[in-house]
Amino acid sequence: MATIEEYLARIRPADVEAMAAAGRRQQVLTKPAGSLGALEDLSVRVAGMARTCPPPLPEPAVVAVFAGDHGVHAQGVTPWPQEVTGAMVANFAAGGAAVNAFAASNGIDVRVVDVGVAADVSGLDIVHRKVRPGTRDMRREEALTTDEVEAALLVGLEVADELVAAGYRCLLTGDMGIANTTPSAALVATFTGTTADDVTGRGTGISDATLAHKTETVRESLMLHDVPGSDPVGVLAAYGGLEHAALAGFVLGGAANGVPVLLDGVIAGAAALVAQAISPAAVDYCVAGHRSVEPGHEIALKTLGLQPLVDLDLRLGEGTGAVLAYPILCCAVRALREMATFESAGIDA
Amino acid sequence: MATIEEYLARIRPADVEAMAAAGRRQQVLTKPAGSLGALEDLSVRVAGMARTCPPPLPEPAVVAVFAGDHGVHAQGVTPWPQEVTGAMVANFAAGGAAVNAFAASNGIDVRVVDVGVAADVSGLDIVHRKVRPGTRDMRREEALTTDEVEAALLVGLEVADELVAAGYRCLLTGDMGIANTTPSAALVATFTGTTADDVTGRGTGISDATLAHKTETVRESLMLHDVPGSDPVGVLAAYGGLEHAALAGFVLGGAANGVPVLLDGVIAGAAALVAQAISPAAVDYCVAGHRSVEPGHEIALKTLGLQPLVDLDLRLGEGTGAVLAYPILCCAVRALREMATFESAGIDA
Repeated sequence: MATIEEYLARIRPADVEAMAAAGRRQQVLTKPAGSLGALEDLSVRVAGMARTCPPPLPEPAVVAVFAGDHGVHAQGVTPWPQEVTGAMVANFAAGGAAVNAFAASNGIDVRVVDVGVAADVSGLDIVHRKVRPGTRDMRREEALTTDEVEAALLVGLEVADELVAAGYRCLLTGDMGIANTTPSAALVATFTGTTADDVTGRGTGISDATLAHKTETVRESLMLHDVPGSDPVGVLAAYGGLEHAALAGFVLGGAANGVPVLLDGVIAGAAALVAQAISPAAVDYCVAGHRSVEPGHEIALKTLGLQPLVDLDLRLGEGTGAVLAYPILCCAVRALREMATFESAGIDA
Repeated sequence: MATIEEYLARIRPADVEAMAAAGRRQQVLTKPAGSLGALEDLSVRVAGMARTCPPPLPEPAVVAVFAGDHGVHAQGVTPWPQEVTGAMVANFAAGGAAVNAFAASNGIDVRVVDVGVAADVSGLDIVHRKVRPGTRDMRREEALTTDEVEAALLVGLEVADELVAAGYRCLLTGDMGIANTTPSAALVATFTGTTADDVTGRGTGISDATLAHKTETVRESLMLHDVPGSDPVGVLAAYGGLEHAALAGFVLGGAANGVPVLLDGVIAGAAALVAQAISPAAVDYCVAGHRSVEPGHEIALKTLGLQPLVDLDLRLGEGTGAVLAYPILCCAVRALREMATFESAGIDA
């Protein structure tokens, strides 16, 4: 097994020559230059990831749904029972969730990874990599030990490596964990220099009173631990969650393999901020799938420097926003690969 | 052959009972109610079009690219030569354009319809329904006669009927016509009660000086003809174009067949306003694919009451924005059809 350091040594910044070649190619395809808007920049970025122009199609694709529970659930930050995490993992395994429907529609495979579900899900046909059954309560103590953080990071790195070895050429992030927008808020605040008020939102839907309590819980947790963003492992230890750590590893693993990592919503955004703090070049391989309703997501995307492809008021998670955006990524690359040039089409424009 | 009136008699408003059933179903699927954002409303609308819940998948899909030229090109409203229309039609037929790449990526078939290209494209393997070789210059005279408008409307109605008869269950709009944002501006201004300044934009890209001249051309054309929106055939006669008339017929034809019509950018938006003026219920079958950069498009969408699915600064046309959005429409319907309910999944939430 490779160490975290060995994975990180494989991450290279995107290739500027391939990007320049893609930019030049966009100027001569049979369309007014710039008329494909954000898709032109996207195709240039993918060329940089692949270190060649035109880049290969980012297919086949897989969405990895990392699942975990959160000790901070005990603080009453959500009306959903913690048991829903395990029940939804079973629903993913049975193919009944939104991410399953979207993925089937877009030809994307689904892998569910238990990295920290509190319930016993050992009987399900999923990837079993449980580090521990849920984090500790970040409002009262460290959510994870440093060893647990590193174990969860390695889960994500290894799953990314295994999926690329299996032939996948685009990795999509998914997540499941009741209460996981709460540690996401703490992570985003830490890495973006913002406050609990700025980044705490209603998750999948809570009352004004619960939102006020959730925000206070995030604020108190930030005061309790006060870990700087320059210590990303320490930040993950303070707040968790196990799926955030695994997702950070997954982003780094995608970058180590030179494939696009299509991010879902605020949980993925928080994890990508961790990955950025560990290895800034990892962001070169990230594509923002969508903009979620959660206020911390927009703040995270700004710090990551990423423009979302879809903006449709989704607030579900599971990877649904990344899966929705995947065909747009494919179209951007297809245009760069397959369109005629004015010269090849014999058009004198 | 059916008459226009016979087609219009087949258009029914969306079915409110099917929509209500879809709204209830969205409340019990395994996700927090509302967490799929705009996709929930979209699935409800598709149920209304299909008059059943859940509705069938909107597949297979086809994008019909209606091509025509414009007499107003002589006014110098664009730097692109008129010959590019015919050259791009040949590029579509050869599979080298952006819409071909996007459609291939998303599993959508492409049909190219010559409804009014100035050049002789009779040797190409496309659908030949030329009404006349380009419109007359709207700045100087009526762009089309009433007979020509009705012939072009029938082209769109008949193409829609033929495609649904061939098995397609979702119709996407595409267009090609150098200078066609100019008559689009006149159409949008007429049907939305706005001015040439409000709705005239840079199309696929023009200088400040050309934009000022283009806006003046639109303003003078509106003053010359001054046809009210209550006379949609008269409006099409005044400004054209042939592809706009055919697209209006295509929208009406999709509605007559009860299938979703996924609209592209400002040309489709202008045509949908014509369709709305002819038969208001036709808009029940329209889905806005994207929001283009062209200022008249946002204004058209507001009057149509449609929210775009994609917003990525595209300004190409051809159907690219509709093709990009198609997988999102499919995901919305798949979720409604395939997701488990909390009861079926045994989740006590």
